[in-house]
Amino acid sequence: MSRVPTPLWHKLIAVQIYGANTGVGKTVFSTLLGAHFVKRRGPRTWDLQYIKPVSTGPADEADDSYVLKYTGAKVQTLFQFKAAVSPHLAARGAAYLPNNDAIVKKVYTKLRDHVDLILGENMGISIIETAGGVLSPGPSGRLQADLFRPLRMPVVLVGDHRLGGIASTISAAESLILRGYDIDAVICFDDNGKYENSEYLRKYFEERDIAAFELPWIPNLTDCTESEETERMAAYYFKESAENALFRVAERIIERHFERLTNVDKMASRTRDVIWHPFTQHKSIKKTEEILVFDSAYGDYFQTKHTSSSRAGHRRSGNLPLFYPAFDGSASWWTQGVGHGNPKLSLAAAYAAGRYGHVMFAGATHEPAVTLAERLLEGLNNPRLKKCFYTDDGSTAAEVGLKMALRASCKRYAWDSSSEDIGVIGLKGSYHGDTIGAMDASEPCVYNKKVDWYRGRGYWFDFPTVKMREGRWIVEPPAGMDNVFGAPKDFTTLDDVFNFEQRDTAPMYEEYITSVLDNLVKEQGRKFGALVMEPVILGAGGMLFADPLFQRTLVKVVRAYSFAKIPKKTMRFRPDIAWTGLPVLFDEVFTGLYRLGRFSSASLLQTHPDISIHAKLLTGGLLPLSVTVASQSIFDAFFGDEKADALLHGHSYTAHPIGCHVANNSLQMMDERKAGYSWQGYVRNWKEKAASSRGETVDQLTMRPKAINESTIWSMWSKNTVIELSHHTLVDHVIAIGSVLAVSLKDEANSGYTSTAAIGLRDALLNQPSFSYLNIHSRVLGNVIYFMASMTSSSSHLASVEDALLQRLNAMSGVDLSVGDWGDARKRLPQDVAVFSAHRGRET
Amino acid sequence: MSRVPTPLWHKLIAVQIYGANTGVGKTVFSTLLGAHFVKRRGPRTWDLQYIKPVSTGPADEADDSYVLKYTGAKVQTLFQFKAAVSPHLAARGAAYLPNNDAIVKKVYTKLRDHVDLILGENMGISIIETAGGVLSPGPSGRLQADLFRPLRMPVVLVGDHRLGGIASTISAAESLILRGYDIDAVICFDDNGKYENSEYLRKYFEERDIAAFELPWIPNLTDCTESEETERMAAYYFKESAENALFRVAERIIERHFERLTNVDKMASRTRDVIWHPFTQHKSIKKTEEILVFDSAYGDYFQTKHTSSSRAGHRRSGNLPLFYPAFDGSASWWTQGVGHGNPKLSLAAAYAAGRYGHVMFAGATHEPAVTLAERLLEGLNNPRLKKCFYTDDGSTAAEVGLKMALRASCKRYAWDSSSEDIGVIGLKGSYHGDTIGAMDASEPCVYNKKVDWYRGRGYWFDFPTVKMREGRWIVEPPAGMDNVFGAPKDFTTLDDVFNFEQRDTAPMYEEYITSVLDNLVKEQGRKFGALVMEPVILGAGGMLFADPLFQRTLVKVVRAYSFAKIPKKTMRFRPDIAWTGLPVLFDEVFTGLYRLGRFSSASLLQTHPDISIHAKLLTGGLLPLSVTVASQSIFDAFFGDEKADALLHGHSYTAHPIGCHVANNSLQMMDERKAGYSWQGYVRNWKEKAASSRGETVDQLTMRPKAINESTIWSMWSKNTVIELSHHTLVDHVIAIGSVLAVSLKDEANSGYTSTAAIGLRDALLNQPSFSYLNIHSRVLGNVIYFMASMTSSSSHLASVEDALLQRLNAMSGVDLSVGDWGDARKRLPQDVAVFSAHRGRET
Repeated sequence: MSRVPTPLWHKLIAVQIYGANTGVGKTVFSTLLGAHFVKRRGPRTWDLQYIKPVSTGPADEADDSYVLKYTGAKVQTLFQFKAAVSPHLAARGAAYLPNNDAIVKKVYTKLRDHVDLILGENMGISIIETAGGVLSPGPSGRLQADLFRPLRMPVVLVGDHRLGGIASTISAAESLILRGYDIDAVICFDDNGKYENSEYLRKYFEERDIAAFELPWIPNLTDCTESEETERMAAYYFKESAENALFRVAERIIERHFERLTNVDKMASRTRDVIWHPFTQHKSIKKTEEILVFDSAYGDYFQTKHTSSSRAGHRRSGNLPLFYPAFDGSASWWTQGVGHGNPKLSLAAAYAAGRYGHVMFAGATHEPAVTLAERLLEGLNNPRLKKCFYTDDGSTAAEVGLKMALRASCKRYAWDSSSEDIGVIGLKGSYHGDTIGAMDASEPCVYNKKVDWYRGRGYWFDFPTVKMREGRWIVEPPAGMDNVFGAPKDFTTLDDVFNFEQRDTAPMYEEYITSVLDNLVKEQGRKFGALVMEPVILGAGGMLFADPLFQRTLVKVVRAYSFAKIPKKTMRFRPDIAWTGLPVLFDEVFTGLYRLGRFSSASLLQTHPDISIHAKLLTGGLLPLSVTVASQSIFDAFFGDEKADALLHGHSYTAHPIGCHVANNSLQMMDERKAGYSWQGYVRNWKEKAASSRGETVDQLTMRPKAINESTIWSMWSKNTVIELSHHTLVDHVIAIGSVLAVSLKDEANSGYTSTAAIGLRDALLNQPSFSYLNIHSRVLGNVIYFMASMTSSSSHLASVEDALLQRLNAMSGVDLSVGDWGDARKRLPQDVAVFSAHRGRET
Repeated sequence: MSRVPTPLWHKLIAVQIYGANTGVGKTVFSTLLGAHFVKRRGPRTWDLQYIKPVSTGPADEADDSYVLKYTGAKVQTLFQFKAAVSPHLAARGAAYLPNNDAIVKKVYTKLRDHVDLILGENMGISIIETAGGVLSPGPSGRLQADLFRPLRMPVVLVGDHRLGGIASTISAAESLILRGYDIDAVICFDDNGKYENSEYLRKYFEERDIAAFELPWIPNLTDCTESEETERMAAYYFKESAENALFRVAERIIERHFERLTNVDKMASRTRDVIWHPFTQHKSIKKTEEILVFDSAYGDYFQTKHTSSSRAGHRRSGNLPLFYPAFDGSASWWTQGVGHGNPKLSLAAAYAAGRYGHVMFAGATHEPAVTLAERLLEGLNNPRLKKCFYTDDGSTAAEVGLKMALRASCKRYAWDSSSEDIGVIGLKGSYHGDTIGAMDASEPCVYNKKVDWYRGRGYWFDFPTVKMREGRWIVEPPAGMDNVFGAPKDFTTLDDVFNFEQRDTAPMYEEYITSVLDNLVKEQGRKFGALVMEPVILGAGGMLFADPLFQRTLVKVVRAYSFAKIPKKTMRFRPDIAWTGLPVLFDEVFTGLYRLGRFSSASLLQTHPDISIHAKLLTGGLLPLSVTVASQSIFDAFFGDEKADALLHGHSYTAHPIGCHVANNSLQMMDERKAGYSWQGYVRNWKEKAASSRGETVDQLTMRPKAINESTIWSMWSKNTVIELSHHTLVDHVIAIGSVLAVSLKDEANSGYTSTAAIGLRDALLNQPSFSYLNIHSRVLGNVIYFMASMTSSSSHLASVEDALLQRLNAMSGVDLSVGDWGDARKRLPQDVAVFSAHRGRET
């Protein structure tokens, strides 16, 4: 996916002309528009550029001379194919097939070059004439509107004046809109009153706040002599109606350009005036400019407005575009899965909106919700889990999970929770959401301690963590607990950390946990209603990688422990599927649904929770939806004769069809990714011995990729980089699993969430000194800077992120490597270069 | 908007044939398909029906004879226009212009008639051939795919085989999909290898799980003699490739039909297996069938699967379709504003998804979020409110509002909330959401009392309520509090209740509230951090209409009251815009954004809260989004040097662009509604003296409707009906304001939320004895049955709801009026009939 800036400069209007179909007069209109700008009277003089990104056949050459004749501009054809057919067919026989990125980059480069050539106070107008209809295939077969989407230039749509043209024009507009394009104007040639499309279309679009214009019918130029042609066109152009209409179209395009510039300029200050930002100390925003303005996003990239900081290092800053692409390094707060602006998800959202809107879910049902529940239960592959309860976000899903677990335990143990304090058991550093009930399930921390109604309810275990330091994976006891857990232990691979049978610390963990519980329950008489944990990685707590064996052992001990005498009247239950000890709730909001490479991160612990909560990646990163999945034995605790015994929870938009349908689609896309080659490459990269041949991952019979070896723990981030980072002088340790990479910087003060360590690195990555480096938007948690990819991020882009990170770190540590030199750093580990190349070479 | 069932019967396949454009071979394909079914060998015999809903010009007549010749079926043209132009032009000169409803109903009726005529074990196939392209205008000008959307029949899309046809075919498909259509198959004629569209399209659609088929090129019939034509077509049809392709297309259509039937059949049991429903005691679902299956929704109507109960009264139950339209009487849990399946909202959702997906909002911004915040601040028109904080639903918005208010008060009064209990002041029966923090702000009730971590924190006032009983509005003191508030008071109009200057109870209220506060604060030493209220209507508490004067007085007293000594170091503040006493939080999640007819229901109280929360209608009823709007003085309480002092709250999808952009669009649509004629009619209906001339509401200068008189309290439900209901023997009282109508049935036991009263009425309305009556899906709260409209519901449909309600009530009370008789009931109030007619007559 292309990394190019949106081509918006103050002094250049770049507008792409799409046709509602072929033969609607796209070239004629583009020429008239170009000619108008060249001759336009007014305060500004316009330098015209006329680009055809892709051109096929000799007829197009004739068009070019036509354009030249009336506008004086030489058509810049970027990719020319001889055959007079659609580009995807013409490209077949061609010696060189440009890939989509190359086309997009070339368009961008041409526009940038034009900007550099605009004289003095002149303005530039670049007309990009597309080929065929809006969704005609480009050379690679990708639909044109998708191909050019990374540029998201404003559009003029030339309507179809023929019979059926109303339908094709509106459909073409809808296809553009659902890909996030802004249509500056629709124009339609009048057909001399035959079908009256132009009148209908003008009204239709104007009602939808899209400007629409009618142009008089174009002269018939068939069998003209050259002088006749010139004469007729001149006559047409000087027709008052044509001139007026073109003037108004141009006026509209110019007006929209300046509106856009003004909007971009004002966005930060408008935001400052009316927005209260999440998790933000507004006093720390020293300059309004610090508020990042995202104009759009596509794939892994935000289009971010330049600030004085981002602009600082650029030599060419005079002609910098207004935006630059920044890698979405936090996966938009851990949500992104299939790339921004994914057209399949847009269409899925629109379909569900069109079929249902929202339909209430109490006592009712609809297809997307049921299918999603079935898909989740299948994917989670946990024989305990049976019922899905939908809510809106991770925090509400946690609240529901807590309500479920607490009721189940209070009911079984006949506790009166209205008069007794019932807590949860969890881990230090856990976080389950921003609502007060979810907060109460975590120990006091910076997030909750100033919330006036917060009351931490429970006991939170300290625990050993996994980290890579100087190329070795270690399991390290928490500070000051060497006496309990012993010295840090080394592991050759991450697989070894998860190889529970081979590890010998389980009895020690078991003994420790039991002794703590004995103290709490037997000695202090405290009551607990649930074990609540984020499996493997505690995200908001600072990307803490918990020793999976400790978490697994905690579940085992809690399930076997006697938290209270079970009253005799309690119904029997099957301990293999019903909860024992306490209900076990896994908060997989962050870690689940492929974030760590698996559908469920519980599978990494080889254990089955009684309640599992999911959100974020559920919709692939599009819109809020969450689900709390529960076992039958939890469900049964609410089954009774009284309505009041039911789980009386339900937000209005529970199971909204758009969210469910989008989730079904994004889960399917991620499932497909799991089976694809790119993930195979990641797995191979993380295996002890790198595979050299591609054959290994292909089923020789079907020639389809083999399923990923579920026993390997792997990451989308390259093993080499992780190792190299872990050796870095500024780095304390690193973790990498699935799409998550977290780098813990050395920080003597270690002041936690409120620390400003790592912020320097974050800012440097966002504001790179030149476009040779990737700009990266990232987030920090105290002294931890982390990076997160979509499931669909390409490994070449991830490699760029890694390169940029290493280069910035080196610069910070005084190793000021220039652009060409960073590769040396890589050479420090020559034995891995082959693996690295094998890993990176496949995708672009 | 049409009230017709989705035309799905076991024995009939009704498929509509759309063309990607005109001239793509739609008639040829439809004929071939019809001919195939007629001749089809296999276990079933097919009875063919061929419908053209709209036909124009003589060419179509030629087509009809062609269809007849090859299929033996006479084309049933429902609306024929002479001119050979697009229907919207042809209809201009016609004597009779059918409205959209009439066309939709006629199609449905024809299909139903066909079902009745299908012989024995035969199956029926109805081919509905549309005119022009997917979005060609119908006679009224409405786009065809919108016009037929109430029927949502499966589609076969005939692709365009010509140059540019890939683009037009995919765009046409996208236009269908975003309107919620299911495309059973795309077919494309091969063009003898010229453009190869069919190959591209087949692959493209198959990758998107849409079946696609190629058909061999059609014979050239130009200038054929009749016998030559017959010969060529016969030859074509018996071409193996054509026969095979048609067989497979038909097979696919049949397969999809039976899939659809199976899905419908299994949906309830699949749901029962995997879904944990919101607010539902699962044990009370006696039969799986009781779970309502919504196949789709459009406008105000669900397409609901028939159950044995809904089918019971129907004479024709043998040939009933699988679905029936049910009025969405709870506005899908109070969310609906602009109708289900609104194509503008679908496209708005898709645009934002295409432009952004979700982009993270911490420290960043994007256009839809800022524009929405500005729009809200403008609409709320409250000089205190300055900052918008986004979350996902009403409950999270309430949590944020509580965090804001409590911090502000604890900070000003220097309270240590970690060791002291800080409560809220509110009203009995209030409800602010399902998360535990939001629950804590309400007194114990059925919703929260079994939530183990629930701890009600505050004091809740009992309060007088407004209701209409026997045609009179009264303000009634709470049970047993006549000694405090005096006897119930009568008012002629609802306007009088809200005419605070004219009312004399304010001093009494003031005195009472002050005395209660004195007892709590001065005597008991309790501490309070916020006044939290739903203005005017307490929804979940049972649609309690609070005396607005009491609420207004409560705000006034709280603002003047001294809840603690203000430490000297406290900064000065301007009491006109800064909070005093306690921060006042209005929960307008249910009541705001036009639900009660005003943008803000605070305006009904003529007071300005410091915090205002909004959700539900915010997105017009499409997807979750909420906002907590705060004053500068609240915002300032979080402004400080420490990050920890900030409001550390922020869900991952905070301010998701789809939600914000959809909200901007739906608020605009509702704003436009406010300015339109239909709402003028409602206001006029509720004014004391009915206006007889339309002129009154029209600005004579501009001829645009005048702005609604903001001082009138009005409802979308007719005054007559409300009065009539209030007289009904089974009814205790009624309330109506804005789009809300709530009928409180007499119930000796008055057992509250868990009561089963009103459930009988609810079920009877859902399961009407015949289609002459509207089926209504409604919800009950204890003995209250309520009805809620969208802002765009037409008054004729609301009148049908009222009629159905009155008729069912009469039936329950033994006045068993037959279909024709209910009108008599109306005549009980003859003086109002004119008003009623004037009110109802305008819209259909």
